[in-house]
Amino acid sequence: FPASQIQTVTLIPGDGIGPEISNAVMKIFEAAKAPIRWEERNVTAIRGPGGKWMIPPDAKESMDKNKIGLKGPLKTPIAAGHPSMNLLLRKTFDLYANVRPCVSIEGYQTPYTDVNLVTIRENTEGEYSGIEHVIVDGVVQSIKLITEQASKRIAEYAFEYARNNQRASVTAVHKANIMRMSDGLFLRKCREAAEKYKDVKFTEMYLDTVCLNMVQDPTQFDVLVMPNLYGDILSDLCAGLIGGLGVTPSGNIGANGVAIFESVHGTAPDIAGKDLANPTALLLSAVMMLRHMGLHGHAKKIETACFDTIRDRKVLTKDLGGNSKCSEFTEAICQRMKDMD
Amino acid sequence: FPASQIQTVTLIPGDGIGPEISNAVMKIFEAAKAPIRWEERNVTAIRGPGGKWMIPPDAKESMDKNKIGLKGPLKTPIAAGHPSMNLLLRKTFDLYANVRPCVSIEGYQTPYTDVNLVTIRENTEGEYSGIEHVIVDGVVQSIKLITEQASKRIAEYAFEYARNNQRASVTAVHKANIMRMSDGLFLRKCREAAEKYKDVKFTEMYLDTVCLNMVQDPTQFDVLVMPNLYGDILSDLCAGLIGGLGVTPSGNIGANGVAIFESVHGTAPDIAGKDLANPTALLLSAVMMLRHMGLHGHAKKIETACFDTIRDRKVLTKDLGGNSKCSEFTEAICQRMKDMD
Ligand SMILES: CC(C)[C@H](C(=O)O)[C@@H](O)C(=O)O
Ligand SMILES: CC(C)[C@H](C(=O)O)[C@@H](O)C(=O)O
Repeated sequence: FPASQIQTVTLIPGDGIGPEISNAVMKIFEAAKAPIRWEERNVTAIRGPGGKWMIPPDAKESMDKNKIGLKGPLKTPIAAGHPSMNLLLRKTFDLYANVRPCVSIEGYQTPYTDVNLVTIRENTEGEYSGIEHVIVDGVVQSIKLITEQASKRIAEYAFEYARNNQRASVTAVHKANIMRMSDGLFLRKCREAAEKYKDVKFTEMYLDTVCLNMVQDPTQFDVLVMPNLYGDILSDLCAGLIGGLGVTPSGNIGANGVAIFESVHGTAPDIAGKDLANPTALLLSAVMMLRHMGLHGHAKKIETACFDTIRDRKVLTKDLGGNSKCSEFTEAICQRMKDMD
Repeated sequence: FPASQIQTVTLIPGDGIGPEISNAVMKIFEAAKAPIRWEERNVTAIRGPGGKWMIPPDAKESMDKNKIGLKGPLKTPIAAGHPSMNLLLRKTFDLYANVRPCVSIEGYQTPYTDVNLVTIRENTEGEYSGIEHVIVDGVVQSIKLITEQASKRIAEYAFEYARNNQRASVTAVHKANIMRMSDGLFLRKCREAAEKYKDVKFTEMYLDTVCLNMVQDPTQFDVLVMPNLYGDILSDLCAGLIGGLGVTPSGNIGANGVAIFESVHGTAPDIAGKDLANPTALLLSAVMMLRHMGLHGHAKKIETACFDTIRDRKVLTKDLGGNSKCSEFTEAICQRMKDMD
């Protein structure tokens, strides 16, 4: 590649199994000849002036420059007293849309087939506002904050996403029967967005009803858009339908192309460093990243090699039902890509 | 039965299919010779002094006298401007524990077998506080209210329930990693209750993780206890695992024996009055009611007849995969009980 075509991406390997699976992704990207240069950065919580928690300046600068990041799991010890670094990253770069495609994987059996949906979660406010008070002893309030601006932004993002990804419908998920003002505002903004995107079908459904229908027949859903906490719940539920967090990608999208793609599973300290981890979630997140960068050919190639390897069921990590090591699974994917050339 | 042994229960048939399925339950209770006298009351929203929404005085008096109610579905038109009557009933009688057993039903196939769990939902506060504000134009807050008293009460209820129903474990479901103060308080009260009930195993789990694990393997769960909204979501999700709201019972429990048992499905206006509705959810709720009243023999008899009828698959309503009418299904259950005598 001419140097001018190579793009630099901030890589945050993360904790626990993070470095191993990041290595796997780098190897596979190399084999795929993806025109990506990695700029590795560590992210640990530090205290800025005034005691505010922040991410390290060199990580911030790298992201500000590159705009695009790939991130492994970060440990979030409640005891440490600092907020989850995952959340702090989303906040720092105003990554307002959390996008998680859930697609059934051939060769990895679950009770469900043909799941093919995307959860789009408002990623900046709602129940995650962090505003809480003690009113009197033994009485606590948490504030769910819903704004017109953020609701409009995520609603329009969902319809844009549907349109750009040939998806037929958007479902707004809410509890406006209970939280009439906050979820009511969110829902209103979804309805207004629907008016602007007449080519995309729009429906609305209570969160509880979505959960019930989801486990009964997930194939009825397409794109779902919802406030922060509901997205946290539904995205995990949907991940469960297709095999869990080890195989589901995730992207956090901001304005002007800024985005961080991440695997949302944990750091798995019990198997860290043992070459046993499954890099699929991080790899598929990296594939999302390639598409976000317009590198559709490389995305397709890597994705195909990954899914073919799983469908084949010969070289799989333990969690996928196999006996192979992370490095062997990685090698199998690389080999497939060489065979494609 | 000597008149002194007959207990009176307030029956709220409800809207839509409510009257039909209530009739079915009354027939089956008669065939089972259950010592219950029904006192029928309508519940529609009325405005009390000062404009406050309330339930009709004759329904309130009936419940105050009888303490125990059975309730069909009530329609809740958002447009009417009044709160959900279901919620108003829970509030009026301080029914603080919403209890929903989810048990796989033989003969009614879903992707899951051997589900056997109970969700216990805090039923009076949390996200259902009804407190919302507009801060400035386009910025709305909803208040999630968590109190020590209500958290302690529901936590202890869950452990009492586990102990009295031979259940081995209680899982507290929370997002105390995000809502550190409110869910933190709830969780602390669960931990304190666990200290008092050492014979019951205690675990805690994030709501998102519960959802994920639930769809992957629901058999790992036993009793789950959680704040209001989480219970709304999880109880529907779990109902979905075993066949939906048409087959899942529910009880709202207050202090001093006060309780209302209800089917939590909708009013199904499309099939109302056509003798097509499935009375199972209301019937199993009535069975929960009998157990609550100490009438274990009658409870067992009706439950067995109902489950045997479903297992048999000969006389089933449409939603259960059959062709029979509500009255035929009801008759089949009554016939089985006669055969038992
Ligand atoms: C790590 C945690 C704070 C986070 C969340 O609650 O959003 C996670 O569950 C997620 O979904 O990315
Ligand atoms: C009817 C509705 C207000 C109610 C709720 O949200 O609690 C229902 O979904 C339930 O679970 O009983």
